[in-house]
Amino acid sequence: MSVFDNEKKRALERLERRGADGEVEELLQRLNELDDYFTTSSCSGRIVVILIPEIGAKREAVFLGKWHRPVRKEEVLEAIHSAAPSRNGEVWFITQSPIVHVACRNLGMATALLRIALESGFKYSGIKAIAEHDGKVVVEILSTERMDVPLATDGRMLCSEVHLEFILSKSNFMLKRGKEKLQRLCSGLHELT
Amino acid sequence: MSVFDNEKKRALERLERRGADGEVEELLQRLNELDDYFTTSSCSGRIVVILIPEIGAKREAVFLGKWHRPVRKEEVLEAIHSAAPSRNGEVWFITQSPIVHVACRNLGMATALLRIALESGFKYSGIKAIAEHDGKVVVEILSTERMDVPLATDGRMLCSEVHLEFILSKSNFMLKRGKEKLQRLCSGLHELT
Repeated sequence: MSVFDNEKKRALERLERRGADGEVEELLQRLNELDDYFTTSSCSGRIVVILIPEIGAKREAVFLGKWHRPVRKEEVLEAIHSAAPSRNGEVWFITQSPIVHVACRNLGMATALLRIALESGFKYSGIKAIAEHDGKVVVEILSTERMDVPLATDGRMLCSEVHLEFILSKSNFMLKRGKEKLQRLCSGLHELT
Repeated sequence: MSVFDNEKKRALERLERRGADGEVEELLQRLNELDDYFTTSSCSGRIVVILIPEIGAKREAVFLGKWHRPVRKEEVLEAIHSAAPSRNGEVWFITQSPIVHVACRNLGMATALLRIALESGFKYSGIKAIAEHDGKVVVEILSTERMDVPLATDGRMLCSEVHLEFILSKSNFMLKRGKEKLQRLCSGLHELT
């Protein structure tokens, strides 16, 4: 068995064990059915509320809330207030595009997938790494949907409810658009077979 | 003259004609001095205020303000209010990482540059395109600094001044960090010679 096929076998076992969010499952299955590709990580797009000690210290970030679906104001406020008021740090509201990392057997396979991803609306996609030992190429599939809003600092909420409502309406719309792009990408994959 | 060298010649002429923001000039010069690379576009990182008819319709966006340096609240407010109140659409406050597109003679040159970019903190860098006819590879150098905040809709400002001040302090900090990464990248380029 080649290095690539061996890595694929282990990646599929990992996926089987850990699972993936529902809305990206079909895409992962279709990609993994293709001999020359396998997925290594994925997210169907999400909304998160995090507490970070200071900007950039994301490794120490604490998740206060995480959703792979549209959110309501009440649950976001609840997440924000779940941080102890005395706790130092910043609360950020973040919306993230779907993201999928795909290992491709070689550069030709990678550029074919990259083209389909770009055509499906994943405009921030690119090749992230090329393995020297076996030529394996990792494609990151990523779209432009994104929001990063600092909401509160050191226990002090700075965003009004009416502003938060507006932010959430935009965010929910972005999330929906990201999921639609996943569908489009899924349909586009038939070109690879 | 090869296709690559010919394209490089024209790109340098274009750069000469149009110029670039001050803080990315040294980096462009160093890259363009190397035989196997040339830059095709760049931005040293910026803060913008835009008016968009609706989310995603970025092609129709109108710039209300654009700065490649830290901003003060007064000038941002002035930009926001420069949109006629009757004008339909959303006002967004956006902070963007430095971005540089570099054409590389071949894949080996591209992965060498990509490695240095990643090590300099440009974690969203990747290969965006590989030309079929001559093997030229375009690397996008991009970092994580980013903020996208919807501020106002249909002439109605939703962000309080105190929240805006907080957003600007974070944004100015991000801008500064982006410029520091540009310096680091510039120093790292000696590995390519």
